[in-house]
Amino acid sequence: MKVLITGVDGYSGWPLALHLLARGHDVVGLDNFVTRRRVKEVGSWSATPIPAFPRRQAAVREVLGKELGFHRGDLADYDFVRQVLATERPEAIVHLAEQRSAPYSMIDVHHAVDTQVGNLTGTLHLLYAMREVAPDAHLVKMGTMGEYGTPNVDIPEGFFEVEFRGRKDRLPFPRSAGSWYHWSKVFDSGDVMYASRIWGLKTTDVMQGVIYGIRTPEITDDRLLTRFDFDETWGTALNRFIAQAILGLPITAYGKGEQKRGFIALEDSIQSLRIAVEHPAGPGEYRVLNQFDAAYSVNELAEVAHRVASELGLPATIEHPADPRVELEQHYYNPLHDHLVELGYRRTRELSEVVREIFRDLLRFRRRLEARRHVVLPTVQWRSADSGPALAARRPSEPTPSAPEKPSDEPAPAGPTA
Amino acid sequence: MKVLITGVDGYSGWPLALHLLARGHDVVGLDNFVTRRRVKEVGSWSATPIPAFPRRQAAVREVLGKELGFHRGDLADYDFVRQVLATERPEAIVHLAEQRSAPYSMIDVHHAVDTQVGNLTGTLHLLYAMREVAPDAHLVKMGTMGEYGTPNVDIPEGFFEVEFRGRKDRLPFPRSAGSWYHWSKVFDSGDVMYASRIWGLKTTDVMQGVIYGIRTPEITDDRLLTRFDFDETWGTALNRFIAQAILGLPITAYGKGEQKRGFIALEDSIQSLRIAVEHPAGPGEYRVLNQFDAAYSVNELAEVAHRVASELGLPATIEHPADPRVELEQHYYNPLHDHLVELGYRRTRELSEVVREIFRDLLRFRRRLEARRHVVLPTVQWRSADSGPALAARRPSEPTPSAPEKPSDEPAPAGPTA
Repeated sequence: MKVLITGVDGYSGWPLALHLLARGHDVVGLDNFVTRRRVKEVGSWSATPIPAFPRRQAAVREVLGKELGFHRGDLADYDFVRQVLATERPEAIVHLAEQRSAPYSMIDVHHAVDTQVGNLTGTLHLLYAMREVAPDAHLVKMGTMGEYGTPNVDIPEGFFEVEFRGRKDRLPFPRSAGSWYHWSKVFDSGDVMYASRIWGLKTTDVMQGVIYGIRTPEITDDRLLTRFDFDETWGTALNRFIAQAILGLPITAYGKGEQKRGFIALEDSIQSLRIAVEHPAGPGEYRVLNQFDAAYSVNELAEVAHRVASELGLPATIEHPADPRVELEQHYYNPLHDHLVELGYRRTRELSEVVREIFRDLLRFRRRLEARRHVVLPTVQWRSADSGPALAARRPSEPTPSAPEKPSDEPAPAGPTA
Repeated sequence: MKVLITGVDGYSGWPLALHLLARGHDVVGLDNFVTRRRVKEVGSWSATPIPAFPRRQAAVREVLGKELGFHRGDLADYDFVRQVLATERPEAIVHLAEQRSAPYSMIDVHHAVDTQVGNLTGTLHLLYAMREVAPDAHLVKMGTMGEYGTPNVDIPEGFFEVEFRGRKDRLPFPRSAGSWYHWSKVFDSGDVMYASRIWGLKTTDVMQGVIYGIRTPEITDDRLLTRFDFDETWGTALNRFIAQAILGLPITAYGKGEQKRGFIALEDSIQSLRIAVEHPAGPGEYRVLNQFDAAYSVNELAEVAHRVASELGLPATIEHPADPRVELEQHYYNPLHDHLVELGYRRTRELSEVVREIFRDLLRFRRRLEARRHVVLPTVQWRSADSGPALAARRPSEPTPSAPEKPSDEPAPAGPTA
């Protein structure tokens, strides 16, 4: 099957490309390398070294014996999007090219607008380009479990049966997100659902849990590694905990640490996306998949990181600073996730095993963590206007497809600023 | 009370300013005159002649003996927004400055993106500026009943009690809009609700029904008239029906004509907004008001227009062309609307009486209708890419605050193009 991956240079896009190539699919990617720039913007980098994209393509050729097609450009440019779809005629489009950090979206008004406008524009451009030149393609859109918030009822997969004042209907489950970023995903869901309805597009909206891990079976060579972000803006809580343990810093679990979220291992997330691609939605169908394996609290994550660190002889402690986010610290959480299982999904990885694997990899790249040890503490405050000055002073970078830029993750000569 | 009205030059903004001034409030407006430009873009104009803004201000001074403050600028410019709020320190902000046409948003990809990005950016800028310099102000945000779609259950005011799999919660009622424009209002609602939650802002989200009428008690002079748009892009169905009847054209009710929507007279809509302003939401409260009086089907509107035309000796016929929109032609429709009544709202106007009033006014401006008789037929198709060529070829205008422009509604010398 011919598959286009937007955001192919990213954390999920890269291993998905490797996996689909290994399965015999024809894969072409698209990226504007904005994540590399934005991680630099907060003074950080990936703990795993990420080669420039042409070197990634060369490694794919050498290690997997496969050709990964690529278009450099920006989804903000409609003519570019339409031309890529018209040229490549993909049967499936996996849309991962969005600003993906909640803290980044909360830095200030400009980062909030940039996140919502950028994500919404990219998705609308893809939808219109599909209608124009690829109406039979299947869109697999990356959303987030965070669209649902933490309601006091079970969370269905997208839709539920409502009974209200004596009448019944099947309606979209109400969304209640917890950051401007998460709201941008809610907005995308609305637009994808609507485009599917009026134009008959085939669409799958993936409510993705938090992903953990760096390895998939295809990553057999360090040149094929995917990103591992550990700074407060771009890294997940678990990633920061592991980085903190390796750096000898206290593991910082915000607040009471009882906030729960859905999680899935990278390898199983890639398995899920592959299943969605290989089992397309029907014409006019807007299919929602809740994509996670298990719900963990922040404390459970901190404890796993602490336990594995201890096994490895790393002294670690857990601290509970005040939560800079606005979120319920204690709440009910029971999202359903049956659709993927019905399509053949089986969980293959367990949290503690993957955490051990991450520690082993990161200990090899310890020097890269040491060089950026200042970035693992929070600077963005959800409530007040007082975000870290180095962040708040900057407007978000505005990438243009033609900007001359070295797509590499190597450290800038100047010292870190945040 | 000091009230800032964004979009003060518009259909609702203008009579709201007059009414609040007459009630003794201190009113300042803001506008970028984009609606005037966009109505020209589709080759139309307001049936009522609308003077340039300084002449409107002069008429307010002369007729009402009041001073209407004004800032010309664009909500897309955050520094402008913050400066207006910092200078004026409004106690209430009525936010009406949004792209308000569903057909306009459906013209093509650029109009879709322009509508969603513009509306969302303006609202986010207002929210951030409130947090920064006017955290105690009360935001009254114009939404639309169209956010809810046409579910098969009663529509509550924003929130409802959900029972799902044996547990209960109070959740936002699911939104399911019917155009990119209506979705932009859904997105705004999400952002306003969230800002209220994290920053404690006072907010009221008005789910506005379709408004009909041109007159309010303060409009005692033709220089104080508000807009009456009758073209397919900017006019409502009822407005087009009345224009068609006056022009001797068949009244065109799309499809079966059984699509139902909520309606309210302009005078009562202004009454509602005034009540919302005078009874602010509390800190951190996100209050939703369903603002309409009665639900009418398209056929009922066509019949009222037909009946009043006959009374006035205008021969009129009703036709049913295929519906260019994607909407259910037969459906249940029962939205609740108790909150405003609890705050003291009382309906003062009836549909047929207001329709008579509109006919009387428009017959005086019949020559302005005659000069634009070609604009009342639909050119925008919801489903296909084939919108009217004159529309689809154009990118949306991109106003800048500094653009030299005559804010007047006088006809351009060149002939109409759509």
